[in-house]
Amino acid sequence: MASIADRLGVRYLSGPLGHDVLFTIVTLVADQDRYDRMLESAAAKGFDTSNSEFIALDNRGANRFDGFDAMRRTLPEAKGRWIVFTHDDVEFDADGVDALRARLEELTALDPGWTLAGNAGGIRYRRGNPLLALHIADPHDKGERQAAPVLVESLDENFFVMRRDRPVLNSYDLSGFHFYAGDLCRISEVMGGRAYVIPFLLRHHSGGKIDASFAPARERFRRKYRRYFIGRDLQTTVTEFRFGLSGLREGWGETAASRHSYQQQNLAVPGLAGTE
Amino acid sequence: MASIADRLGVRYLSGPLGHDVLFTIVTLVADQDRYDRMLESAAAKGFDTSNSEFIALDNRGANRFDGFDAMRRTLPEAKGRWIVFTHDDVEFDADGVDALRARLEELTALDPGWTLAGNAGGIRYRRGNPLLALHIADPHDKGERQAAPVLVESLDENFFVMRRDRPVLNSYDLSGFHFYAGDLCRISEVMGGRAYVIPFLLRHHSGGKIDASFAPARERFRRKYRRYFIGRDLQTTVTEFRFGLSGLREGWGETAASRHSYQQQNLAVPGLAGTE
Repeated sequence: MASIADRLGVRYLSGPLGHDVLFTIVTLVADQDRYDRMLESAAAKGFDTSNSEFIALDNRGANRFDGFDAMRRTLPEAKGRWIVFTHDDVEFDADGVDALRARLEELTALDPGWTLAGNAGGIRYRRGNPLLALHIADPHDKGERQAAPVLVESLDENFFVMRRDRPVLNSYDLSGFHFYAGDLCRISEVMGGRAYVIPFLLRHHSGGKIDASFAPARERFRRKYRRYFIGRDLQTTVTEFRFGLSGLREGWGETAASRHSYQQQNLAVPGLAGTE
Repeated sequence: MASIADRLGVRYLSGPLGHDVLFTIVTLVADQDRYDRMLESAAAKGFDTSNSEFIALDNRGANRFDGFDAMRRTLPEAKGRWIVFTHDDVEFDADGVDALRARLEELTALDPGWTLAGNAGGIRYRRGNPLLALHIADPHDKGERQAAPVLVESLDENFFVMRRDRPVLNSYDLSGFHFYAGDLCRISEVMGGRAYVIPFLLRHHSGGKIDASFAPARERFRRKYRRYFIGRDLQTTVTEFRFGLSGLREGWGETAASRHSYQQQNLAVPGLAGTE
């Protein structure tokens, strides 16, 4: 008679996670023409079915996914060694598949514990003179380029890479289209990971959009993280945070129940399911 | 000619994550006899290939995976709606598959935002009189039972459940076989999730092992989290933490580089690859 493990079809795992392709390229797609331009440029630079799979989070016609959903929705589907997240308005007009692989292997040699890599990020806050690391062609481009990976505190959303064997997932109490890479970097930090800007060049056709949802999203990010980053400053590519000491009072004597109440009062977006 | 999206085999995702079975049952397996006992008991209580898949993290003969590896190694392989983690020395001698499903659906109705569920955890620290929630038959059992889900700050490692559509992953700068559920609860907390003890009963044949690795693991946990949980107390089933204020000094003026240095000096396990 078959063993109980055989009868239940037990899978014994004894080695590291494998991968079918090098890259899973995940894109929040709002506009087909922009996405097609991105795909054409990727294919022209060597990203194809021999080394990559492509997943579109389909926001054509309606927003079905926000930035905070992207990684958690994709990770269980992804089969690549590296998961590359992009906006639909980037274009691979400079570096290609071989360069990206080489930059990520260099980064792994430099820091085997890295968790996130991107093309723009904040190193640290300095009043009036933010310290950023940039390696991107975008409307703000002043030609800043990096020669080697730079350890950063935050990354821009237009393009970032994650390891499928060492993933990081976004917060469940934030939502929308701002600060999701900054949030990912915070979770990565608490998890003990590290984020880098790497010298991989692409074109981002937008300089970042400061719309009406930006200020409330920034305030929710501040209220969430000031309780974990007491006394700390944070520089992102688009803004900065000085978390100060008020989180000390808010966190004092905190319980799981009082924290839930704080989340409902301070982080929920009125009318948005799942955030209250 | 096919569109560029067709040529690259783009998958458009437009709905929530699906699942092939209800449960992915993940076990750190050090001992085949204990695991077979667990599997036999699971099958007798209705967990079988019609509703569950079974994944063994194979530590027979050698420790290939620690507690912190378990979820990150398994998540990309799992196909269940819920991921159930167990020790190999638990036995399903009371509740079964229908009860677990019912308890998780009750929890989801109570709190759609839950992230973790278990059978033992800490609600809060009270000096000399820790407030715990227990619903487990183990060598310490004094018959405490819960009638409904209880919101907790920490869970015991013997058994816990995670949602595959809302996962939480362990820290990369801790390791070993202690505090990995407490770590998962901390990451879940920062991500905005919530952990509960639910009234699902099984037997755990161990009361928890306080071995020589316990005290150093506890100290590493304390050094890691006192910088994010300044002034906070934490109750686990086996110990408590009073994080105090020293993290305020340690975090003050911190940069990504100084944090990496702190990790290397305070959290790394000498001689263990990947922790330095």
